[in-house]
Amino acid sequence: MQKVLEALAARIRELRTKSGFSQEAFADHCGLHRTAMSLLERAQRAPTLRTLLILSWGLKIPLAELVKGVDTGMKSPPRSRTRGKPKSKKP
Amino acid sequence: MQKVLEALAARIRELRTKSGFSQEAFADHCGLHRTAMSLLERAQRAPTLRTLLILSWGLKIPLAELVKGVDTGMKSPPRSRTRGKPKSKKP
Repeated sequence: MQKVLEALAARIRELRTKSGFSQEAFADHCGLHRTAMSLLERAQRAPTLRTLLILSWGLKIPLAELVKGVDTGMKSPPRSRTRGKPKSKKP
Repeated sequence: MQKVLEALAARIRELRTKSGFSQEAFADHCGLHRTAMSLLERAQRAPTLRTLLILSWGLKIPLAELVKGVDTGMKSPPRSRTRGKPKSKKP
């Protein structure tokens, strides 16, 4: 999961820079908190679908383009928050 | 936002069916709650990035492929939960 967040953070930063925005200006442009944007670009927060859509809209690209390649290095799926723990097996 | 959720729900259902899973079997396969899967496929829940990654892993496709086209009809960006309301302007 962390690897994906890091790849996504790098991607957001790259696309945002290409569009000529500073991090603060891009946050304002998208209507997101500057702190939230900072956390995203430092891979310290996992975005919701809502936030991903806001970002892709702000960058004027499709959602699929925004997340392209971010999961390339994923070796195992993230654990579900609620079902992540394997059930203990009774003998 | 709701349109995107509906497009995503249809996409999950389509890809899941193609893979030969029933909804329950796919939830179990992914390690997600059956209720969560049902909510997703009825467009009643917005997934997190974590859940999207779990789904794409379960379908053996890249994340970008899972979300491809779901935002095609989006006419405006979703509102930020925390910054959604325009600030009142003082005269």
